[in-house]
Amino acid sequence: MIILGIDPGYAIIGYGIIDSSKNNALIDYGVITTPKEDSMAIRLKSIEEGLVFLINKYKPDVVAIEELFYFKNQKTVIPVAQARGVILLTCQKLVGNIYEYTPLQIKQALTGIGRAEKNQVQFMVKSILGLKSTPKPDDAADALAVALCHSQTSPMLNLNKL
Amino acid sequence: MIILGIDPGYAIIGYGIIDSSKNNALIDYGVITTPKEDSMAIRLKSIEEGLVFLINKYKPDVVAIEELFYFKNQKTVIPVAQARGVILLTCQKLVGNIYEYTPLQIKQALTGIGRAEKNQVQFMVKSILGLKSTPKPDDAADALAVALCHSQTSPMLNLNKL
Repeated sequence: MIILGIDPGYAIIGYGIIDSSKNNALIDYGVITTPKEDSMAIRLKSIEEGLVFLINKYKPDVVAIEELFYFKNQKTVIPVAQARGVILLTCQKLVGNIYEYTPLQIKQALTGIGRAEKNQVQFMVKSILGLKSTPKPDDAADALAVALCHSQTSPMLNLNKL
Repeated sequence: MIILGIDPGYAIIGYGIIDSSKNNALIDYGVITTPKEDSMAIRLKSIEEGLVFLINKYKPDVVAIEELFYFKNQKTVIPVAQARGVILLTCQKLVGNIYEYTPLQIKQALTGIGRAEKNQVQFMVKSILGLKSTPKPDDAADALAVALCHSQTSPMLNLNKL
C-alpha cells in the first residue's frame, strides 16, 4: 500500500511517500513551496498543482495528513487551514482515501510516547526507514512521520473492521 | 460587471450575484449547504461543485469575499478557513479576479459606519437592491453585502489605478 503523508502548510507543504507492503520502503519525500509574492489564491493553486503532480506520479492508495489545532499557532492558523482545505479537496478527488492523525497519535505511533520531543520522532523516522540521516527539511520528516503513523496504525484499523 | 459575493462557511456558504453595470441589478442569491454526515473532505468537494455550477451559470467577472479573523469564532475557524481555501482556489481557477473585504470595510461601504449593526447592513442591502424584504438566510444577505461593497468600492479602485 502506497501511503502519501502530508504536513500541511501554505508556504511549505511537506510530503513523504512510503510503501507499507514493502516494509515501509521509502519512495520519495520533499516539500512543495509557494512564493510569498503571490496572492493567497495563486499560492493555493500552486499547492493544488504540486499535489496533482505527486499523486499522478506515485499513485498513492491512501493519504495520511496531520490534524490542525488553532491554539498551536494562532497567527498562521487561517492560511494553514485554507491550504489544508485545498489539500483535502485535491486528495479527496484524486485518491479518495484520507486519514487524519493528531500530533499526539503520530508521536505515540512512532515512539510509544504521546509527548515525545520532535527529535525523538525524527530519530524514529530515520531508523524505521533505514536512513543514514534525518530527512530534511523538518516538514518532509513530519510528512514521513504521519505516513509511518498510518502504516503502523492501519493494520489495527483493519482488525477493527472485522 | 457581474459580481459574485461570497460569505464563506463550511456548512452554509452564502452567495449573491449582482450586475454593477445595471445599477446593481440583483441576479441571484442563495446558499450552498453541505451535509454534516459527510467527511470534511467530501463537504469541501460539495462546496467546489456548488461554486463551479454557479460560476458556469452566471459567469461572474469578479469575486468579492469576506475576510476571516480567528478571534471571531475560534471553534469554527479551522473548518471555515479550510472551506475558504477551496473557495479561493475554485474562484482563482474559474474567475481569476478576487477581492477580499473585511467586515469593517463592508459595513463602512454599505452604511457609512464601520461599526454598524447587522440589521443596518441588511436594511441597506434590501434598499440598494430595491427588495421588499431582507434576503434570507443571513448568509445570502451577507454575500450580497460583500458584492455591493465591491460595487461601491471598485470605481475608487479604478481611480487609484489612474
